[in-house]
Amino acid sequence: MSTPRPAPPVAARLSSRHLLGLAGMPADEVRLLLTTARAFREVLDRRIKSVPSLRGITVCNLFFENSTRTRLSFELAEKRLSADIVNFAASGSSVSKGETLKDTARNIEAMKVDVAVIRHRSAGAPHFLTRCIDGVVVNAGDGQHEHPTQALLDALTLSDLAIPRLAGDDAAGGGLAGFDFTGLRVAILGDVAHSRVARSNLYALAALGADVVFCAPRTMQPVGLDALADRLPRRSQLTVTDRLDEALDGADVAMALRIQLERLDGGVGLTPSLREYHETYGLRPEHLERHPDLWVMHPGPVNRGVELAGEVVDHERSVILDQVTNGVAVRMAVLYLLAGGEDASGQ
Amino acid sequence: MSTPRPAPPVAARLSSRHLLGLAGMPADEVRLLLTTARAFREVLDRRIKSVPSLRGITVCNLFFENSTRTRLSFELAEKRLSADIVNFAASGSSVSKGETLKDTARNIEAMKVDVAVIRHRSAGAPHFLTRCIDGVVVNAGDGQHEHPTQALLDALTLSDLAIPRLAGDDAAGGGLAGFDFTGLRVAILGDVAHSRVARSNLYALAALGADVVFCAPRTMQPVGLDALADRLPRRSQLTVTDRLDEALDGADVAMALRIQLERLDGGVGLTPSLREYHETYGLRPEHLERHPDLWVMHPGPVNRGVELAGEVVDHERSVILDQVTNGVAVRMAVLYLLAGGEDASGQ
Amino acid sequence: MSTPRPAPPVAARLSSRHLLGLAGMPADEVRLLLTTARAFREVLDRRIKSVPSLRGITVCNLFFENSTRTRLSFELAEKRLSADIVNFAASGSSVSKGETLKDTARNIEAMKVDVAVIRHRSAGAPHFLTRCIDGVVVNAGDGQHEHPTQALLDALTLSDLAIPRLAGDDAAGGGLAGFDFTGLRVAILGDVAHSRVARSNLYALAALGADVVFCAPRTMQPVGLDALADRLPRRSQLTVTDRLDEALDGADVAMALRIQLERLDGGVGLTPSLREYHETYGLRPEHLERHPDLWVMHPGPVNRGVELAGEVVDHERSVILDQVTNGVAVRMAVLYLLAGGEDASGQ
Repeated sequence: MSTPRPAPPVAARLSSRHLLGLAGMPADEVRLLLTTARAFREVLDRRIKSVPSLRGITVCNLFFENSTRTRLSFELAEKRLSADIVNFAASGSSVSKGETLKDTARNIEAMKVDVAVIRHRSAGAPHFLTRCIDGVVVNAGDGQHEHPTQALLDALTLSDLAIPRLAGDDAAGGGLAGFDFTGLRVAILGDVAHSRVARSNLYALAALGADVVFCAPRTMQPVGLDALADRLPRRSQLTVTDRLDEALDGADVAMALRIQLERLDGGVGLTPSLREYHETYGLRPEHLERHPDLWVMHPGPVNRGVELAGEVVDHERSVILDQVTNGVAVRMAVLYLLAGGEDASGQ
Repeated sequence: MSTPRPAPPVAARLSSRHLLGLAGMPADEVRLLLTTARAFREVLDRRIKSVPSLRGITVCNLFFENSTRTRLSFELAEKRLSADIVNFAASGSSVSKGETLKDTARNIEAMKVDVAVIRHRSAGAPHFLTRCIDGVVVNAGDGQHEHPTQALLDALTLSDLAIPRLAGDDAAGGGLAGFDFTGLRVAILGDVAHSRVARSNLYALAALGADVVFCAPRTMQPVGLDALADRLPRRSQLTVTDRLDEALDGADVAMALRIQLERLDGGVGLTPSLREYHETYGLRPEHLERHPDLWVMHPGPVNRGVELAGEVVDHERSVILDQVTNGVAVRMAVLYLLAGGEDASGQ
Repeated sequence: MSTPRPAPPVAARLSSRHLLGLAGMPADEVRLLLTTARAFREVLDRRIKSVPSLRGITVCNLFFENSTRTRLSFELAEKRLSADIVNFAASGSSVSKGETLKDTARNIEAMKVDVAVIRHRSAGAPHFLTRCIDGVVVNAGDGQHEHPTQALLDALTLSDLAIPRLAGDDAAGGGLAGFDFTGLRVAILGDVAHSRVARSNLYALAALGADVVFCAPRTMQPVGLDALADRLPRRSQLTVTDRLDEALDGADVAMALRIQLERLDGGVGLTPSLREYHETYGLRPEHLERHPDLWVMHPGPVNRGVELAGEVVDHERSVILDQVTNGVAVRMAVLYLLAGGEDASGQ
């Protein structure tokens, strides 16, 4: 038996005022976010799920792109922290009157909003927002750039999994509970080239020590792979393949990405058809039989029968709903650490 | 003079965790809901209308069908109980991305929502939801099946009416204040075949002892009348006619249903025209003159000049706005009994 | 040196239960609103921005016309006063089912809403609402009639400006801090004929003692100027010109109005083109150079390059964002004085 791993370091605080992405975030700060999220997850299991941490703090949800699921998750996190919430959706707003993001942002700033959660179809919109407003900015997904809270909730979900292959390393079972992911191998399947989920996960997983394999048809593989690998602690943490079997071989977890049906159906021709995609890159029951320790994740909403067969979605080794639960806890942690912190806890 | 009626029994608690419909609900449970609603109605008359009963409890309003009025009423009820609220509307949601109700529901469940209020155009959607989630489900109207909170608010409104014909039975005037509706006769006018309001009212009124007459053109009369009558305490509690005069004869209350204009105008041909409908089945001032003790109800929103003449809507024997007020109280009672109860009151 | 102005009178309370417009409002009541707003502005600078003044009071925001900015500002004001809020937007509501404003209003009343904030494209809709409901009505903009909270926030913004020309009058600098605007000259530029912002500002500014010059092409000048001037304390407080230079000459503040692009582009032919409008009536950097003490205001959202050159929007003498900040404070004051008052403060 190997000796238990030492507990990896956890930062005392975040070094940035904002959460724009996970590229370059030190592992100890990722762990601070995850440790805090785990504490909030316990709050969510109580009958009374609210804490007063952000009482009197105003959060504005700026959703320039439709996303019921992510918006609901942020809203729940904000309500459970007792924040005041205002929602700004692009449709029906002055955005449609031709106002620029800058003017929108400065107006919201002038209304003395403390935190802005932004989802936008342009990469970099959250960074731009930090130059317009004094408040805290949280990226809820920007174009094909990053989706940091998704990757954090994925990491929290991973930390609960039993990974038999790594069990010997740690008395706690899978060895991941302390957020040291050394030895873990995660296959990310689908349109990794255009996926902010893939990108943020790569940064978070590599920071925590895991290895990542991107699996996609060549048309969906990112250009500039070398530049991507250069941003990781070790270049060898990222490999790429266009063969699903190769990706699953040795993987502990398969994380399937949502296929943008528009992209497939719209004649862009990235893959011939949904059926062919499912047959080549979709996870099917046979894969779970062949890999009896493999866990399945998906950021949702799932296209049943495309990325995942329906049986795989509902399989006992699918942790898709745990991801959703962890999403609220992670967003509570992000908001608490950026906007609440010690001031709030001492109320 | 007859002796006062004995007070009818009131249940100590509801036997179901959900409110899916009123078919088969025992009379004493209907009375528990109504008694509780009457208590909350007093709260609504105070300057400070909030109570802390559902503090820390999260309610998700899942409206797959447009309904400002019912949604507002539920939202107000939830706010006055101090619940945390998230709203999920079908448009702009992952529903439009092709997600199934099941997946939507399980996601909401995974976000640890305690109560789901659902309106859906498919009959049975709330029942289906109970199989997807652990939380409490409240039916806010499902297809042509049931709309239980509407029938409960109608019953609460009825209990306040002075019914001279029944006055001798009870010192309290109309004899209905204790929610024993024996001897009351309610005419329900309009498209009873397709109306969830008619159906839920039939169950609630019959449970409380009232007689109901459905009045509709033959094309709008329900098939399977016998099966419907079989579900009532006494089969004789339901009669059907296609003649308005016959329906109003002996009725204490006329409850007009909203005509779906789409149905009339859309060439479905259920009735020849709005004008003809009004002339044959619409309540007009002459009816109120001819029946000087008749009360008028309508679930709203009214098509003035169709189901009811404008003068009838605004008549002193119209209690349509009382129905609206009672709606908030009834929904507070439903949410309190299902999600708050003794735990909450002891906070 | 002249002696300091005496402090002008401030009313103890508002004489109306509603805020429908500023025409005819006595100066001391305008000052009560502004003094209260200034106090709330200090609350907005605190970390915890909420006060419990309207706890348990329900405010319904009835927006029949799109306006993210004004709605957000009202919502923030309501949240910071701890009111319960329900939103009613025209789209997706029973309004689209053909319900009249009267029926909508009475239904909301029946739900025991205490305050209704209404924006409507028809002038007079808020007045009509006061005849339908018992609650307090606040006009958030009605057609081309009035937009009183906009004019109040503009006045609060003006009171902070340093006006060198008036400096001698008062130890406090610009002499406006006490809300005596005697001697101040404000140029309002744009489609004054159709602008509720221009109209409400005219009433508020004239009540406080200022002079106003309307500057617009003849097609955008109001008919019935005499009738308008008759409503002011002194008829000479309003002048009109179609020459921008003439308007700016001697003006302390230039308030540009938003041009309705629909109106320009829609072939109505009020002005030949956006470019020509900008060249004839748009404020450009050269104007700020030529008038080194001139302040710039705009109710937002700005059409950059039309009413104002981009450099003018971002100029150090532009106080457009102060207007936004003051908007929340002014709306808190309005709601507090109408719906909270002494009862609430004593909680």
